[in-house]
Amino acid sequence: MELPIRGIIPPVVTPLVNDDELDEQGLNNLLNHIVDGGVHGIFLLGTTGEATSLRYRVRRQLVEKACLIVNKRVPVMVGITDTSFERSVEMAEFCKEVGADMVVIAAPYYFPIAQVEMQRYLEDLVPRLPLPFMLYNMPSHTKIHFTKETVDCAKELGALGIKDSSGDMLYLLSLIDAYKDSPEFSVLTGTEIFLPETILQGGHGAVAGGANIFPRLFVDFYQASLDKDYAKIEFLRRIVMKIYNTIYNVGTFTSRYTVGTKCALGALGICNDYVAHPLRQFEGADHQAMANYVEEIKEMMGKAAFF
Amino acid sequence: MELPIRGIIPPVVTPLVNDDELDEQGLNNLLNHIVDGGVHGIFLLGTTGEATSLRYRVRRQLVEKACLIVNKRVPVMVGITDTSFERSVEMAEFCKEVGADMVVIAAPYYFPIAQVEMQRYLEDLVPRLPLPFMLYNMPSHTKIHFTKETVDCAKELGALGIKDSSGDMLYLLSLIDAYKDSPEFSVLTGTEIFLPETILQGGHGAVAGGANIFPRLFVDFYQASLDKDYAKIEFLRRIVMKIYNTIYNVGTFTSRYTVGTKCALGALGICNDYVAHPLRQFEGADHQAMANYVEEIKEMMGKAAFF
Amino acid sequence: MELPIRGIIPPVVTPLVNDDELDEQGLNNLLNHIVDGGVHGIFLLGTTGEATSLRYRVRRQLVEKACLIVNKRVPVMVGITDTSFERSVEMAEFCKEVGADMVVIAAPYYFPIAQVEMQRYLEDLVPRLPLPFMLYNMPSHTKIHFTKETVDCAKELGALGIKDSSGDMLYLLSLIDAYKDSPEFSVLTGTEIFLPETILQGGHGAVAGGANIFPRLFVDFYQASLDKDYAKIEFLRRIVMKIYNTIYNVGTFTSRYTVGTKCALGALGICNDYVAHPLRQFEGADHQAMANYVEEIKEMMGKAAFF
Amino acid sequence: MELPIRGIIPPVVTPLVNDDELDEQGLNNLLNHIVDGGVHGIFLLGTTGEATSLRYRVRRQLVEKACLIVNKRVPVMVGITDTSFERSVEMAEFCKEVGADMVVIAAPYYFPIAQVEMQRYLEDLVPRLPLPFMLYNMPSHTKIHFTKETVDCAKELGALGIKDSSGDMLYLLSLIDAYKDSPEFSVLTGTEIFLPETILQGGHGAVAGGANIFPRLFVDFYQASLDKDYAKIEFLRRIVMKIYNTIYNVGTFTSRYTVGTKCALGALGICNDYVAHPLRQFEGADHQAMANYVEEIKEMMGKAAFF
Repeated sequence: MELPIRGIIPPVVTPLVNDDELDEQGLNNLLNHIVDGGVHGIFLLGTTGEATSLRYRVRRQLVEKACLIVNKRVPVMVGITDTSFERSVEMAEFCKEVGADMVVIAAPYYFPIAQVEMQRYLEDLVPRLPLPFMLYNMPSHTKIHFTKETVDCAKELGALGIKDSSGDMLYLLSLIDAYKDSPEFSVLTGTEIFLPETILQGGHGAVAGGANIFPRLFVDFYQASLDKDYAKIEFLRRIVMKIYNTIYNVGTFTSRYTVGTKCALGALGICNDYVAHPLRQFEGADHQAMANYVEEIKEMMGKAAFF
Repeated sequence: MELPIRGIIPPVVTPLVNDDELDEQGLNNLLNHIVDGGVHGIFLLGTTGEATSLRYRVRRQLVEKACLIVNKRVPVMVGITDTSFERSVEMAEFCKEVGADMVVIAAPYYFPIAQVEMQRYLEDLVPRLPLPFMLYNMPSHTKIHFTKETVDCAKELGALGIKDSSGDMLYLLSLIDAYKDSPEFSVLTGTEIFLPETILQGGHGAVAGGANIFPRLFVDFYQASLDKDYAKIEFLRRIVMKIYNTIYNVGTFTSRYTVGTKCALGALGICNDYVAHPLRQFEGADHQAMANYVEEIKEMMGKAAFF
Repeated sequence: MELPIRGIIPPVVTPLVNDDELDEQGLNNLLNHIVDGGVHGIFLLGTTGEATSLRYRVRRQLVEKACLIVNKRVPVMVGITDTSFERSVEMAEFCKEVGADMVVIAAPYYFPIAQVEMQRYLEDLVPRLPLPFMLYNMPSHTKIHFTKETVDCAKELGALGIKDSSGDMLYLLSLIDAYKDSPEFSVLTGTEIFLPETILQGGHGAVAGGANIFPRLFVDFYQASLDKDYAKIEFLRRIVMKIYNTIYNVGTFTSRYTVGTKCALGALGICNDYVAHPLRQFEGADHQAMANYVEEIKEMMGKAAFF
Repeated sequence: MELPIRGIIPPVVTPLVNDDELDEQGLNNLLNHIVDGGVHGIFLLGTTGEATSLRYRVRRQLVEKACLIVNKRVPVMVGITDTSFERSVEMAEFCKEVGADMVVIAAPYYFPIAQVEMQRYLEDLVPRLPLPFMLYNMPSHTKIHFTKETVDCAKELGALGIKDSSGDMLYLLSLIDAYKDSPEFSVLTGTEIFLPETILQGGHGAVAGGANIFPRLFVDFYQASLDKDYAKIEFLRRIVMKIYNTIYNVGTFTSRYTVGTKCALGALGICNDYVAHPLRQFEGADHQAMANYVEEIKEMMGKAAFF
């Protein structure tokens, strides 16, 4: 794996038939769709991947099959965080065994823990990991927003970077600034709309949920940022904003990002749109609206000479 | 099981040797200590029981052994909530098999879900349960504070009551008021200091963490409230306040309630004070302070003629 | 003024004709209604009194007229907090001049300040005050929840007590416990439903908004708590809960407590129900509902032999 | 005044000798420093201007003197929000009288109001205003984050734009997107680091607190964004980040932005660094550190050929 980790790394949705069964054909379609779209890595079992909603049997199947399908075309990263420490270790070992390249660590998410508690947790966990790791900041779901001290702690323990999904751009920029002299430590945004700022200020990429649906769009967005091609950045940002205003904007539940992404993939015929409990897929009118949104976005993309 | 569920129901701590191994002798001591103290039921695998930090192998051992030790002397309730729906169902089935009496359902705790999402979740989960159930409101850890509509939904699905750990006394009183005409629906406080108000206004009891350490104190507190013996209530509340100001007040982490409870049990020689990741037991000076606190509280209790 | 300050101290609503004009007849009616109801003091220009919505001309008229009407029958306390320090000092001087007995200090409410900033503020403000003062904890509106250190600071500077409107009963009980050896330092709850606990655990009274409407009810609630007459406490608490579930429960705005209180006073014919910007009085159906609620509560009260 | 409002509009600090007295020489220096720096307007009596900490006598003096000093070189906007509705109206009238160009309306900041309450407030307030107005979203201080519906309401009532200080870049971008077909409606960021995104996606400028200290820096930052000169944007953003990491980063209080800005202006000899209650100026070591920071930033700026 080349360092620093860079580019577009979709947090892959987990195609499901029901809570307990993978949609294997859908997984195959989805991963090929994403990899063919030019992404630089994939991230399995994150929030968008509904990791916490899945039993370990399903999680293991997913990782194993995904590694086979991807077949080393791009690096495979896997979220291993569990509220149980030993479960995380065990999952990391499984990931190593089936050929994943890296694991991703968020905070254990039941107890609201303090920064010092998170640091101790990392100090105990990291020596048990058989694979390189990256940190994942996700305060809305884990109740802890990592301070600089906690990120430093992870870095000293060998973290290859951090994915920040706080949505706080000032924090993201301050991370980039803080680690600008550590060229192998990667700062990735989890808020895809911040991709240009991330790249232009010296960050490394995005864990972009939208790249499940439109991988090429985000790869182009990344390349335009690298090239400082601002006309293109501006044009592409309008399309990404359109995704926010349509696919991510059905209903009022916080879960609409995840559910909307799966629904759009269903509308594209790539995979099943089943969403595991406690979330639920859209129905009826919302379903049809989503199909229209996907068409509108495709049309916006089609207008670009450079696609 | 007699309805409504009433009295003092300790959320039992899980005695551990390490993250992956029960302290079996400690569990035996603890459960006998609690049951001999006169409690009216026990609640396994709640927040105080560190359920989410334990692997299922350990959780199952705990429930199985606890049912054997308790041996039907009091009802056994078990928290089954998991972020995975099927895992919750499976755990409920196991509880039935080994002789537990009831399961307790909180919100799945990773995704911040809406009330309607929680209601749908209950509608799907409850028909799959082989045992009666109670609802558990724990917004600080699950990110959802159940509205009246959600509690109504649970009640219509057959819930035997609700344990409220929001810490919001006005909410608690409004629940009692709302269900005062449903004599079999139990309202229990998870904030032990609110026990007298709960009982005096028509509620049913407390899931009192402090009853792990001093079960008799809380049973007396409950009885005094039932008897409207206010001199005794006032006297006992000062002791309970003392617990808050000492045992629950070491350090500044949110986790100090759970860690302090285990530490006090260790100081009393009842069970091991090991706390699973991501929390950690107290050390050094804190440890000694805890032993002193326990002595001070015992002395306060000794002064009461009625103990 | 006898210390510690005790009993029922209504946060008096400010009867208005419009944003800029007092309803003088209403003020006269209201204050006599309250004082005849047996309250132990009055608190002008608090949150319920819409202090911040009024110009200083109106605030001064209110204090001056209220002192004349009350005519030393009970102590008059006045909220002087402003975002401008000098304005607060000037208002305190005016209060002294027209015969008020005490001033009440909350946190200046625009900047979210730290505990140390609040302590410095008190250190600078208190020496400038010509009257005794009390502290007022109101985190939902001022963005700061006073720590023990801040309350200690106020006490050392001479505060006669604290009114706690945090709604956090555990905090309230911990204040009572912390100052139980300072017999002249008063702890008052701003959450009227907590009155019995406040008194029974050693606190001193309530700044009860509902005492604008039903002063006698709250005075009886206080007396029953002092007398440890628990049958009466329980009975009266049901009536107070009824107020929460009706008068304070119209619509979903946070402002419904204040607006509902004025509306009920209008329904009783005591004063005008005009509410200053940015709040607004209820209209139409809500108005009629309120009249019915008041009747229902009167009927509940009428059923008590002891009224 | 040319529409839409565009460019760099510093929220001017209020130079003070003490809580009650303007530093008139400092005000003169500051305004000339800012206007000579090429800014496109000034905003008096915002959060950075400590409006709420000042008495009306001081606020009026400030506006009157500022209008004289600026002498129509750039438009003068004035924050008029007060918790008292009539006070806001009166201040707007005064602004008109002394020659200000526009008023700025935030939410009244004591009561936590609902969107509908804010909309009603605007409907009543706007017809009373003798000058054009702009909306100001400042949820951290006013407790309300304007929804699209509330911004639409303001726009229909004639608002010339919105200044967003929520710090939420996705919200800011969604505002720009929402009003892209209303060329006279201005969207300004209150988070200065977001200036390039604001401009590049079609927004109009920044109310940049740092432009008090380094007006030319921000004017260049704006121009670089207009020119899509990304090398320059990237270079300048590093300097702005440096301001965040130094001048805005002394101590841990939320107020450090405001206090740091004044302290830096003091270090530059432009105006007095006195900060009104409840905030307080830095002392001793912090003071010296600030002087060093200012020098470091000047040196960074000096390295740019294009300054």
